[in-house]
Amino acid sequence: MAKKKPMKIATIGGGSSYTPELVEGFINRYDELPIKELWLVDIEEGKEKLETVGNLAKRMFKKANLPVEVHLTFDRRKALKDADFVTTQFRVGLLDARAKDERIPLKYGVLGQETNGPGGLFKGLRTIPVILEIVSEMQELCPDAWLVNFTNPAGMVTEAVLRHSDFRKVVGLCNVPIGMEMGIAKLLDVEHSRVRIDFAGLNHMIYGLDIYVDGESVKDEVIELMTDPDNTNFVKNIEGQEWEPAFIRSLNALPCPYHNYYYKRPETLKKTMESAEKEGTRAEVVQRLEKDLFELYKDENLNIRPPQLQERGGAYYSDAAVRLITSIYNDKGDIQPVNTMNNGAIASIPNDSAVEVSSIITKDGPKPITVGDIPIAARGLVQQIKSFERIASEAAVEGSYDKAVLALTINPLVSSDVLAKQIVDEMLEAHKDYLPKFFNR
Amino acid sequence: MAKKKPMKIATIGGGSSYTPELVEGFINRYDELPIKELWLVDIEEGKEKLETVGNLAKRMFKKANLPVEVHLTFDRRKALKDADFVTTQFRVGLLDARAKDERIPLKYGVLGQETNGPGGLFKGLRTIPVILEIVSEMQELCPDAWLVNFTNPAGMVTEAVLRHSDFRKVVGLCNVPIGMEMGIAKLLDVEHSRVRIDFAGLNHMIYGLDIYVDGESVKDEVIELMTDPDNTNFVKNIEGQEWEPAFIRSLNALPCPYHNYYYKRPETLKKTMESAEKEGTRAEVVQRLEKDLFELYKDENLNIRPPQLQERGGAYYSDAAVRLITSIYNDKGDIQPVNTMNNGAIASIPNDSAVEVSSIITKDGPKPITVGDIPIAARGLVQQIKSFERIASEAAVEGSYDKAVLALTINPLVSSDVLAKQIVDEMLEAHKDYLPKFFNR
Amino acid sequence: MAKKKPMKIATIGGGSSYTPELVEGFINRYDELPIKELWLVDIEEGKEKLETVGNLAKRMFKKANLPVEVHLTFDRRKALKDADFVTTQFRVGLLDARAKDERIPLKYGVLGQETNGPGGLFKGLRTIPVILEIVSEMQELCPDAWLVNFTNPAGMVTEAVLRHSDFRKVVGLCNVPIGMEMGIAKLLDVEHSRVRIDFAGLNHMIYGLDIYVDGESVKDEVIELMTDPDNTNFVKNIEGQEWEPAFIRSLNALPCPYHNYYYKRPETLKKTMESAEKEGTRAEVVQRLEKDLFELYKDENLNIRPPQLQERGGAYYSDAAVRLITSIYNDKGDIQPVNTMNNGAIASIPNDSAVEVSSIITKDGPKPITVGDIPIAARGLVQQIKSFERIASEAAVEGSYDKAVLALTINPLVSSDVLAKQIVDEMLEAHKDYLPKFFNR
Amino acid sequence: MAKKKPMKIATIGGGSSYTPELVEGFINRYDELPIKELWLVDIEEGKEKLETVGNLAKRMFKKANLPVEVHLTFDRRKALKDADFVTTQFRVGLLDARAKDERIPLKYGVLGQETNGPGGLFKGLRTIPVILEIVSEMQELCPDAWLVNFTNPAGMVTEAVLRHSDFRKVVGLCNVPIGMEMGIAKLLDVEHSRVRIDFAGLNHMIYGLDIYVDGESVKDEVIELMTDPDNTNFVKNIEGQEWEPAFIRSLNALPCPYHNYYYKRPETLKKTMESAEKEGTRAEVVQRLEKDLFELYKDENLNIRPPQLQERGGAYYSDAAVRLITSIYNDKGDIQPVNTMNNGAIASIPNDSAVEVSSIITKDGPKPITVGDIPIAARGLVQQIKSFERIASEAAVEGSYDKAVLALTINPLVSSDVLAKQIVDEMLEAHKDYLPKFFNR
Ligand SMILES: [Mn+2]
Ligand SMILES: [Mn+2]
Ligand SMILES: [Mn+2]
Ligand SMILES: [Mn+2]
Repeated sequence: MAKKKPMKIATIGGGSSYTPELVEGFINRYDELPIKELWLVDIEEGKEKLETVGNLAKRMFKKANLPVEVHLTFDRRKALKDADFVTTQFRVGLLDARAKDERIPLKYGVLGQETNGPGGLFKGLRTIPVILEIVSEMQELCPDAWLVNFTNPAGMVTEAVLRHSDFRKVVGLCNVPIGMEMGIAKLLDVEHSRVRIDFAGLNHMIYGLDIYVDGESVKDEVIELMTDPDNTNFVKNIEGQEWEPAFIRSLNALPCPYHNYYYKRPETLKKTMESAEKEGTRAEVVQRLEKDLFELYKDENLNIRPPQLQERGGAYYSDAAVRLITSIYNDKGDIQPVNTMNNGAIASIPNDSAVEVSSIITKDGPKPITVGDIPIAARGLVQQIKSFERIASEAAVEGSYDKAVLALTINPLVSSDVLAKQIVDEMLEAHKDYLPKFFNR
Repeated sequence: MAKKKPMKIATIGGGSSYTPELVEGFINRYDELPIKELWLVDIEEGKEKLETVGNLAKRMFKKANLPVEVHLTFDRRKALKDADFVTTQFRVGLLDARAKDERIPLKYGVLGQETNGPGGLFKGLRTIPVILEIVSEMQELCPDAWLVNFTNPAGMVTEAVLRHSDFRKVVGLCNVPIGMEMGIAKLLDVEHSRVRIDFAGLNHMIYGLDIYVDGESVKDEVIELMTDPDNTNFVKNIEGQEWEPAFIRSLNALPCPYHNYYYKRPETLKKTMESAEKEGTRAEVVQRLEKDLFELYKDENLNIRPPQLQERGGAYYSDAAVRLITSIYNDKGDIQPVNTMNNGAIASIPNDSAVEVSSIITKDGPKPITVGDIPIAARGLVQQIKSFERIASEAAVEGSYDKAVLALTINPLVSSDVLAKQIVDEMLEAHKDYLPKFFNR
Repeated sequence: MAKKKPMKIATIGGGSSYTPELVEGFINRYDELPIKELWLVDIEEGKEKLETVGNLAKRMFKKANLPVEVHLTFDRRKALKDADFVTTQFRVGLLDARAKDERIPLKYGVLGQETNGPGGLFKGLRTIPVILEIVSEMQELCPDAWLVNFTNPAGMVTEAVLRHSDFRKVVGLCNVPIGMEMGIAKLLDVEHSRVRIDFAGLNHMIYGLDIYVDGESVKDEVIELMTDPDNTNFVKNIEGQEWEPAFIRSLNALPCPYHNYYYKRPETLKKTMESAEKEGTRAEVVQRLEKDLFELYKDENLNIRPPQLQERGGAYYSDAAVRLITSIYNDKGDIQPVNTMNNGAIASIPNDSAVEVSSIITKDGPKPITVGDIPIAARGLVQQIKSFERIASEAAVEGSYDKAVLALTINPLVSSDVLAKQIVDEMLEAHKDYLPKFFNR
Repeated sequence: MAKKKPMKIATIGGGSSYTPELVEGFINRYDELPIKELWLVDIEEGKEKLETVGNLAKRMFKKANLPVEVHLTFDRRKALKDADFVTTQFRVGLLDARAKDERIPLKYGVLGQETNGPGGLFKGLRTIPVILEIVSEMQELCPDAWLVNFTNPAGMVTEAVLRHSDFRKVVGLCNVPIGMEMGIAKLLDVEHSRVRIDFAGLNHMIYGLDIYVDGESVKDEVIELMTDPDNTNFVKNIEGQEWEPAFIRSLNALPCPYHNYYYKRPETLKKTMESAEKEGTRAEVVQRLEKDLFELYKDENLNIRPPQLQERGGAYYSDAAVRLITSIYNDKGDIQPVNTMNNGAIASIPNDSAVEVSSIITKDGPKPITVGDIPIAARGLVQQIKSFERIASEAAVEGSYDKAVLALTINPLVSSDVLAKQIVDEMLEAHKDYLPKFFNR
């Protein structure tokens, strides 16, 4: 029943191009979330970006006329000390590493993507040891703070924290659910605020089990619209929703865009190969976009989030983070989809594993709403990705070559022990500098 | 506590080339299993084969000097009346249908196989309604009899009986576990009888969780041998065991030969395409083998199971059946791997689903031995195939096009709603005559 | 997305003395819950009471200046037709039956109480068949309506509806949780609205697993206060909270007042016997109270809920009902403790059983918030009462003497097959008129 | 695949009056179980008994003409060193402590018994720390040995080892299941070897879920006989089986004699009080019996187990132990009821808790046969005793007064926090010398 104290936020990876959205989020919700200090932490190699973004942040708060102090630092411990919330948005190895995650698998006829398949595995191997370090520092320096993670692969990272530390104040976030809600709002031509979806599954493998407008289920209508051959606009415009009518009717749930990798594996592989050929992988595209963005950010007259940031991808991530922090801080009891401990919400997933599921957000953290179970047809894939996440987490923590090969072999985008071994061999070498557990033993 | 009465066995699909092995099994175990009547049932189109096989069976019992009556009939109800055990080994659509199951998927770059992927789906769609008819007749004509099914896909068929009937006296059988035991015996150069494996998983997706010789675990030694680069003989000789050492060490369980389809998907697809090209699909090969076999069977001087039957594939199936029947009949309490209701044996599979698991065989049927759970790395794939089996069973029972497409989409050999639809469309048409639920509505 | 239509409420047992509280609730929340028709249904024997209460209800709505029509009827089907919500507060056999429920067990040295032990069993046996009739009529006459049940034993009744009908729009209610919150508010001297408790368990066997003020856990402080020997006021004033400090500290949860029957069995039995001796059983006391209340209700000048109703017991029941209806109607998404299907909320209770648990209230009904599990020490008792409820429900539905004896034998207030049989024999005879399933066969 | 080496058995509490039965068991099964050394360990206070029993053992092996060395020692570590099997049959505080366990609760109107209620709690508090010491020594001195425990309370002890150590080679034993089989054999007038019961539950709370003769279920006949009013002989003769017909028919399972404490609580309490009054508590009776037994044992001409030992109670305990050891040693794969880790056998008990359940006995230990679940009516009581066992184990390990009070409060023989506290206070004092965790802190 303590009086609310002035808040301190620490953002690891603060030099990220996303930061202006985060700052905008804090500005928009300042009434409910009166933060006092925002600490942007980054590594020395990112000094220039950190300063560029940090100065923009300062200009934004100033323009909004809010007394928020922005601190820039390379000293993570200083930033964590007594923080109330810690957000993580760092990228080990930067976009160069992502480019490798995307490029290398394609050589083996396997999808190259940031959070799925080999790319997801190696992003996890690079990221998990760092997250566990942060968690350990938090336990020492700010044990009551919440860790709001949106560093990918957010599901695997949350699983790793739950299984390989005794820290429990962790929430993983994604912008996919919010995007699905907005897609439905658009499809039905209603305001976003009137749409609610019962979400359940894993990060980047989430299903909408029911869909409501003003509390009434509209799932049947949505599925009808999604399978209407005349509804060509919708089919063309909403990425990842061009599902075979027979499939979507019998699945009877709303897949997420990442389901394309699993329910349209060969087609998506082909598309990815073509666009990697034509315009480069996504990392390569983003590298170009980011260069332009940082040019913009440097403009001393800029004091708002520039609209061009939307094109970067990842829109609404930071908004989701600020929305979550606000609800925890104010014990709001509203419903948000987050990555948290299952605790019985989904029957076929162990209670102590991470799931992404609609939860009540309280000061005591997210409390999942019971789902019962996801549809029979979806259980296998979800369990398979969960198995992958668990084995991959173990590989990351132990620096285990064998488990890295096992994780890739059971990944449904690979399904080959021979390819798994070859890909692991090449990618280990490529990411050597960021995998001390595997090399410095 | 009733006195044991003379036994009647009914074998559906009695004209099969396998029958001599079955007869041999009955002969070998006659001391323990004094059958009085063996009823071989088949359809009129199979008249010639039925008579050929039936006559051979009669000669075999005569040569063995056993008073067993062999009855040949097209009247299934007559055969079922008061039977003690019913075995099923029929094939809806015969080997022609199997050839289509194997050929058509290859056109779409998808594995063509009898019990996996599209072939498994369509074999299930053709078989399940017939099995449910048989079950319904058994409930009327021989309610105390056990149904010993070795018609494939045996896992899906068992699942269908458990979920879509209230008949519980069903056991599904396979020769894969016995083959794995024999492979281990050979690898370790010990007698088969000294080897025991803790089996758990699904039909054609079974894992050896531990391996014993004389009751002592030898799993570590086996895995070492399997991953020994110098043990080339083994690697060359035992089909499906040439696993990447890193994979097999971290899986820490013995996969079955069918795991090649899932842990070596691209490689096995390639091999299957090549051999379909070169020597025809397996069905096409078997059609030739069977022709020769039936020529042999016709020889009036033949009164034993001819050794050539071994090459047909499916060896030990019938032996497994007779071994099971003997243990049920005599309440033996020995351990056999069978397809039965899970009942808690495997934690991550619903209690009321079919699993293939080491079980105690009693007069009251098989009682699974608790496993706890299969390894984390294996749970996803197992649950995925279980999801596939359940959706496929529903499709079969309901004649549902949508569910057939869904089942194929979630099958890890397909993973594409687009391909699933195309394959279902072509295969439905190809098997039209054997899918009345889909066409006569 | 349909427009909200004018609402019709049907209240079964409308002639109850509680009705004025219900009416007051509708008046207080009229802004959010614009009911148009309130149908009070009762049986012909209750004609006088129904009219007395009905007239008071009309005067109350009139005084509040609200255009709500009050209909009085003996025709339940007419009341149910197109209703939006159905509330049940009837009492089969009236207070006379309750007096027998309380008196007879005492003769056998067993606690006599309305919802626990033999009284709870027989109240269930009388009530469940009627509830199932109502449910069946609702499925015909108002299939979209919600059944808000506060007829006791509310947990057993909810279990019976979930297991013995296919109707799912049922919620059971109790005033115990709200009472616990108010007790805590008083203990801590904060406003009720600032207190939140994580409730989990069964009806009349609910535990407060955590306690928050403004979202921060205060459980440790509460337990300290509850075990403080100097805090005599609290100990004296809050019924059922005088727990042994060692017990409550290690239980580490807040029991409810009904836990006295199970954690202070001999003491509570003794107290109940003494007060039955001195002032009569609770039913006998209430009968006197009700007589006075109905005198009051007849006063044509009375147009509010008279304050004397509070002493009747059962305060806040009706308020809980109106609060629930309001949240369902408006898709509020607030948290309320209700009896609903477990669905994974409590790990050690089957997913398809009824539990009482904090739930999010939506237009689609209550969705339990995951609990994980109740404390180890509480699981046994909770499972025992759940077993009792399930066997008792089956006894009620089947009219099974054997199951009635079994239910009482396993009830922890009885624990004797000999006493169970004797009590069942005497109580069956005593309640003969209200147990057609047991006698008219 | 190692060659069988000569066996060493260590028996803790070797000076017990039971030992001659154990020795007889080793003699009878010597062909299968060629033990070389039997080490009888006891405490110095028990020197005389140890020598008496040890000398009898030597005479018995000599008479049987078997080359088994009997070693007597107070040095437990020496006895454990390189042992193959360790059996435990010690009694902390001897029969004096048991007499207190039986006497003290009666003063509070609570059942006094060795393994149930307060007596069971305090026997556990005295025994568990010693067992955990032994386990720890075994991990050092004979890590491959199996611990075969028949020190009571065997269920709680097994639970404690599973939860409070990482030692897994423990099995708990009881003679109740074998007694139930023999009772059924007698009732049906068939040989014991033809009877099989599917056992499931907890130690001293085990149910026979099905009953077979020659593999055919005879449960219905047994229940009919048990509820036949004319079958007075049976009812009179088989202790604990005089159940109310209505109860036993609807329970539809065979309870064990200890169920009298829970399903006939008041009657059994009364009987116990009367016989404590008349002939002393059971401990007091046994003390007299043991005195006579040890006189017999001293007779240098005695070289067999004297028939009088049967009256001591506990018959077949040692036989069960030798039967178990023989099956482990020989990897027999036969079915025996033992206390072991649940592992999914009983659905409503956590997988990692101890249960008593029919299991396959292999060299790798017992593997439970799946039960599915115990009957609904039994789940609550079983879970309640399991909760009691878990809290009591924690109390024992932590020396926690609060948890001791909690354990007794939730025990269905107490059900009162007030009595629980009073009984704990008096019994702690009475057993002070054997509860160092509670006093030496
Ligand atoms: Mn994401
Ligand atoms: Mn097979
Ligand atoms: Mn209530
Ligand atoms: Mn015992």
